[in-house]
Amino acid sequence: MMSDAFCAAVDWGSTNLRIRVLDLHGHLLGKFESDEGLIQLTDRNFERTLERHLEDLGAGKSLPVVICGMAGSRQGWREVPYLEIPAGLADIPGAALRVDGTARPIHILPGLSQRRPSADVMRGEETQLLGLSEEREIDGVVCIPGTHSKWVRMQSGRIESFSTFMTGEVFSLLRKHSLLRFSVTDNDTQLFSRAAFSTAVTDIFETPAKFGEALFAIRGEGLLNDLQPEDATARLSGLCIGLELAGARPFLQSGTVELVASGVHAELYGQALKILNVSFRISDAFEASRRGLFRAAREIYGTA
Amino acid sequence: MMSDAFCAAVDWGSTNLRIRVLDLHGHLLGKFESDEGLIQLTDRNFERTLERHLEDLGAGKSLPVVICGMAGSRQGWREVPYLEIPAGLADIPGAALRVDGTARPIHILPGLSQRRPSADVMRGEETQLLGLSEEREIDGVVCIPGTHSKWVRMQSGRIESFSTFMTGEVFSLLRKHSLLRFSVTDNDTQLFSRAAFSTAVTDIFETPAKFGEALFAIRGEGLLNDLQPEDATARLSGLCIGLELAGARPFLQSGTVELVASGVHAELYGQALKILNVSFRISDAFEASRRGLFRAAREIYGTA
Repeated sequence: MMSDAFCAAVDWGSTNLRIRVLDLHGHLLGKFESDEGLIQLTDRNFERTLERHLEDLGAGKSLPVVICGMAGSRQGWREVPYLEIPAGLADIPGAALRVDGTARPIHILPGLSQRRPSADVMRGEETQLLGLSEEREIDGVVCIPGTHSKWVRMQSGRIESFSTFMTGEVFSLLRKHSLLRFSVTDNDTQLFSRAAFSTAVTDIFETPAKFGEALFAIRGEGLLNDLQPEDATARLSGLCIGLELAGARPFLQSGTVELVASGVHAELYGQALKILNVSFRISDAFEASRRGLFRAAREIYGTA
Repeated sequence: MMSDAFCAAVDWGSTNLRIRVLDLHGHLLGKFESDEGLIQLTDRNFERTLERHLEDLGAGKSLPVVICGMAGSRQGWREVPYLEIPAGLADIPGAALRVDGTARPIHILPGLSQRRPSADVMRGEETQLLGLSEEREIDGVVCIPGTHSKWVRMQSGRIESFSTFMTGEVFSLLRKHSLLRFSVTDNDTQLFSRAAFSTAVTDIFETPAKFGEALFAIRGEGLLNDLQPEDATARLSGLCIGLELAGARPFLQSGTVELVASGVHAELYGQALKILNVSFRISDAFEASRRGLFRAAREIYGTA
């Protein structure tokens, strides 16, 4: 069944594990997704976890594997040193490291680091950028929303600079662990379409200093003015994304933004950029990751 | 030993319980402090908790009690409706409610609510304002830092308006639960004296839009440029307080700020205001609370 398999492409981050078995043309033969990211994998048994899922997928014992993401961090499976920018996307596969002592060949791709203008790092998004560049050459700004959103400036296949914003993590901490947990819901459905979202994005984009006060006002409006949980959640999301976009203002002046996002992130960031009249083009984040891993696998395992 | 006791003054918030036994002049006869705030008191046995500590303090069975803080909230012991502003501080004791069915008389003071310009609430700080006004009449701006920092505009003993900032809660969530927990320490000693604190306050006060990016840069600087945990913590604190002060900018233009704070909050906010050339006068937060509760007890229990 898996006789055509060429490689397993694995995106292993803090909160998710995504495995895809690909053929020689990069087409999907099978996939597995779970929340067995680094946070949940407290026993740190990376190899056993991966092998179990590969077996379930019917992958052969010697199928080679390429991994991107936090699995290559100090807290991960095998630390792979960062590649320092300015760097070309083409340099990424060559800087991958092989995990020692495994039966099958397993390589982990490096993340990227930046020393100036401010110290910054990424692990996983560089592979999405690699995948995106398989489709077309990127000149300009790429936005990859998430737990730690990335804004990246690219020119002729090289990464010039980038900035990370803790947007998704701040949103999630406030939603689940702060006093605001009594005011919001866990439901993400159609948050982006609410007026509460748009208003919050615009307000904080214009006046980011109001962020801390606007957060508590969600509580106040719930207690005194009957703000509903769905609107409270949309507002919280809008405040966090609005603050990111205010910080990313310098990136918004370089033409069309390449938004690399899926699902609820695609909806929310798409809507926020629309409200602010920023032109953007959207690419699927999972697709970008698959393409990037496939490109790296071809180079590493020699059928380029 | 407690024959001179007039009342027990209790500040019962989300994270702390503070009991003080006072004589007829408001002098301290005994005290107890713990972290048995609402968050920890999951069995919700308010009466048993209070009685146990009063007994340990040697307080008589009929000693009256006055309580301020989150014990009067919906999630607390007995909900006491908010007093809506504009309101006079003198109106607070009269709006206290007696807890039903207790052997001794126990009253809980109301919090304050505001509908305009934005919905906001406080529970506990109104009692500190009452205590502060026992010392002198307050005309101008009061800042009470904490989990949810309050900025209050007062005139002739009346509360005109106030704003809440989620500063302390955001700082604590980021410090304990975000990716930054790997970069910072639990130690609060002398954070305010570090250059990392001052620089962060100034940077974010000037450019609040950079907050989300500056947070992640703490991680980046730790990984790449060897930023030490103490400096990382000071920087995180400076970013959170700088964002609050940027939001409180309209309050900073009304003359000397009355800073009601103790311990590490007094140090950090004092230093931050100094850096920004804002003149302020400091009052001890615990003292203000004690004075306010004593004033309320005199009115409620009839020896005014």
